[in-house]
Amino acid sequence: MSKTVDLNADMGESFGPWNMGDDQALLDVVSSANIACGFHAGDPDVMARTMGLARDNGVGIGAHPGFPDLQGFGRRRMHVPHETLANLVRYQLGAARGMAAALGTEVRHLKLHGALSNMACTDYDMARACYQAALEVDPDIIVMVLAATAMEEVVRDLGCNWCGEIFADRAYNDDGTLVDRSQPGAVIHDPELAGPRMLQMVTEGAIITESGKRIPTAIDTICLHGDTPTAVSLARAVRASLTEGGVDVRRFDGRTG
Amino acid sequence: MSKTVDLNADMGESFGPWNMGDDQALLDVVSSANIACGFHAGDPDVMARTMGLARDNGVGIGAHPGFPDLQGFGRRRMHVPHETLANLVRYQLGAARGMAAALGTEVRHLKLHGALSNMACTDYDMARACYQAALEVDPDIIVMVLAATAMEEVVRDLGCNWCGEIFADRAYNDDGTLVDRSQPGAVIHDPELAGPRMLQMVTEGAIITESGKRIPTAIDTICLHGDTPTAVSLARAVRASLTEGGVDVRRFDGRTG
Amino acid sequence: MSKTVDLNADMGESFGPWNMGDDQALLDVVSSANIACGFHAGDPDVMARTMGLARDNGVGIGAHPGFPDLQGFGRRRMHVPHETLANLVRYQLGAARGMAAALGTEVRHLKLHGALSNMACTDYDMARACYQAALEVDPDIIVMVLAATAMEEVVRDLGCNWCGEIFADRAYNDDGTLVDRSQPGAVIHDPELAGPRMLQMVTEGAIITESGKRIPTAIDTICLHGDTPTAVSLARAVRASLTEGGVDVRRFDGRTG
Amino acid sequence: MSKTVDLNADMGESFGPWNMGDDQALLDVVSSANIACGFHAGDPDVMARTMGLARDNGVGIGAHPGFPDLQGFGRRRMHVPHETLANLVRYQLGAARGMAAALGTEVRHLKLHGALSNMACTDYDMARACYQAALEVDPDIIVMVLAATAMEEVVRDLGCNWCGEIFADRAYNDDGTLVDRSQPGAVIHDPELAGPRMLQMVTEGAIITESGKRIPTAIDTICLHGDTPTAVSLARAVRASLTEGGVDVRRFDGRTG
Repeated sequence: MSKTVDLNADMGESFGPWNMGDDQALLDVVSSANIACGFHAGDPDVMARTMGLARDNGVGIGAHPGFPDLQGFGRRRMHVPHETLANLVRYQLGAARGMAAALGTEVRHLKLHGALSNMACTDYDMARACYQAALEVDPDIIVMVLAATAMEEVVRDLGCNWCGEIFADRAYNDDGTLVDRSQPGAVIHDPELAGPRMLQMVTEGAIITESGKRIPTAIDTICLHGDTPTAVSLARAVRASLTEGGVDVRRFDGRTG
Repeated sequence: MSKTVDLNADMGESFGPWNMGDDQALLDVVSSANIACGFHAGDPDVMARTMGLARDNGVGIGAHPGFPDLQGFGRRRMHVPHETLANLVRYQLGAARGMAAALGTEVRHLKLHGALSNMACTDYDMARACYQAALEVDPDIIVMVLAATAMEEVVRDLGCNWCGEIFADRAYNDDGTLVDRSQPGAVIHDPELAGPRMLQMVTEGAIITESGKRIPTAIDTICLHGDTPTAVSLARAVRASLTEGGVDVRRFDGRTG
Repeated sequence: MSKTVDLNADMGESFGPWNMGDDQALLDVVSSANIACGFHAGDPDVMARTMGLARDNGVGIGAHPGFPDLQGFGRRRMHVPHETLANLVRYQLGAARGMAAALGTEVRHLKLHGALSNMACTDYDMARACYQAALEVDPDIIVMVLAATAMEEVVRDLGCNWCGEIFADRAYNDDGTLVDRSQPGAVIHDPELAGPRMLQMVTEGAIITESGKRIPTAIDTICLHGDTPTAVSLARAVRASLTEGGVDVRRFDGRTG
Repeated sequence: MSKTVDLNADMGESFGPWNMGDDQALLDVVSSANIACGFHAGDPDVMARTMGLARDNGVGIGAHPGFPDLQGFGRRRMHVPHETLANLVRYQLGAARGMAAALGTEVRHLKLHGALSNMACTDYDMARACYQAALEVDPDIIVMVLAATAMEEVVRDLGCNWCGEIFADRAYNDDGTLVDRSQPGAVIHDPELAGPRMLQMVTEGAIITESGKRIPTAIDTICLHGDTPTAVSLARAVRASLTEGGVDVRRFDGRTG
């Protein structure tokens, strides 16, 4: 059986009169789209437009809930009770599902955004509060987690549908965490590097760290970015490398337990 | 067959640290609750709390979308394109459905709030844009309309599930519109008056105007208010009058076409 | 005495992570900047950045208050009481003045934005409520009005400092109103046209309508736009035409009464 | 010379249609009001109303900026860069000053709200970023700090006008911090206790901790609360105890350096 992998990117991050990202260009590259739900970006019109594009391009739709912080784009850490987090997730996922239904399509997966994701990565209880809330809304939803983090522990414990994600443009430490953006080499901008690197990780089924260490893990999807022209080139290079290397790019099915 | 009627009230209109209305008291009186969806009032925590209370009291849950205007409580007229209105409705209804699903219950009906409702009352196209959007999210939803207005025309044309509403505390003009709040007698505060008046309208199946004219119409539900102690007394008086008069208070089933 | 005229443009219309317009490019062209105050665009960080740039480029700073409607960019008509409008203006102007003071500069003028401006243009009482509120905050502020509209009547009646504005890229009807954007020729995109046209109006001291009619009026400043690359070219062309035609481009001083 | 002390309370914490607190009752008790500036509570209409009441009652007006978080009432910790904090303070203080000027009064002091205050209490650099920003807007403003915290260090280092504050309804630890709300006895609800306790602290010029330890400090003002009927009774009891004990209640003048 040949290897397959999904490619995902954040989309629908425009808001009102302000555009962000080149969603149209990305839709030719990715197989799944994480669509902002109005709290940190996106608004009902942007959601409708983006979901319609994803549907027309056969790209899987995911809800991408974040903190209620437009100015900070959901990237500022906020301290809120778990029950409030749960309700934020229920609300945003529900809104996304309503919009998808109106467009004759559906929400397949859920991925946390920005600071909400960064915090949940290392906080089992917080991740669990968010994911349980999502599963209460839709027990079949596929939860997208950062591979080899507390998030993965949670979905394994919950026994729900999930998929593991690695980053195309970020270097990894030996403990599986991302190299801090302030460090040199933390972000990979060179398409020549990123493509073969992703092919290697997918083929080996392991995160390869800066020191060359292998961390075997579930690599179901690769996160790409699309907010800069460079990012789109890198995304294309990763897809080309994978295809040439015999890896089939297509939507994840989700694994269980 | 004995007459039945539903009693509805707006609920879940608190926001963050600010309380509004006595939802707990109203839940003993009404059979349906119109729950704010976060744009003009309510937030995900308030929605969860209110829906949970409604569920526990056997009160039917409705989504109550409004304009995105917290400071103005959705009561300020805004001019937005129909497609934007449609997306506002899809988003808020979706959020309400997500929350309800998480709480093991469901959204049965939809009612427009404030200025959105006031404008849609006399604007067929606007009402149609909103109601079609709701039906795209849930084809079975029961649309609550002000009886004998453009809203009723729309639901008849759409052939969807709907129910007609009259107001317990407002006087009517001969053309079926409400007497403007600036006029004397426009708002009925006296429980002694409101109770028998509602019983009479329900029994006759007609709106009775200030001049005594009868406008035969579909009276499936009566709108009560709960934001003042007086309003709660009036609500109780209306329920008592109906019950004593042999009218059974229970959730509407929705009529079609 | 040689003719002088001011050139103004809206700036600081970015928000959080979203950019809008090329403020840096415009600052080389204009002599006054209308800076968004956070209600329809702009946030405290964007305001600080934009005011700092304007100060460093010797460009006059104006407060540009709008409706509280980020998603609609202040372009959706809202119906709010005059006292609320007055408080919106006081608040936003105060915020702008606080920011300017912290940056060692000052707010010289005030111009209404979007739907607030469009409504006030033809509504004397509304314009008066807004301008009086601004003058209560700063009695010396220069109120920028659309020449030959109800706004101009208001500032003449108030006897305050003011300046009259025409548009570089819009055609005029014979009654001094703008040709509706839906009409052909309503918006002027051609720099070859716009430059000489502005020079002629400034030289004659009159708005020249589509039919060639002259409406003598106070032309103290010309409104440019900067949200597209084309707009920046047109802005540069207008400035070049004026300078070549012997009109000195510099900040208005404001006229009284 | 007889002792004097100021009494302060948070006010103007209503928002849109939602009321909070009994500002009218508190205005008879306090000599200074900390007025919300629209980010965590308050809106321009509420600010205008509250400042007008304070002015009419001879109560000193303070700006009370908070995090941009209405749902969380500014009580949720957010992590934002210092420059963003500085701009938040400049903006909100400017808005308050604009409103006050329009009402013929002025903003005398500044006090941080909620989580912004809690964080700044123990974070010298954060407090300094906020206070410097305020002083750039108004070099004469009186900064209200929690006595014997990092905030006090900052104002002493800045050499600005300031006043030190203690809480009427909170118990203190031996290091001068507040006993955590989760501990028994942390919050003092009994007017019989609170009144004499405040008189003693003011007379001794020291915070008296739970263990009876004295921490000599600058007690220029006492913070009262007004969001519950009990809170208003406690506020009245404190004022009565002070007056009976020979302490004159009046607005602070601010101390320097």
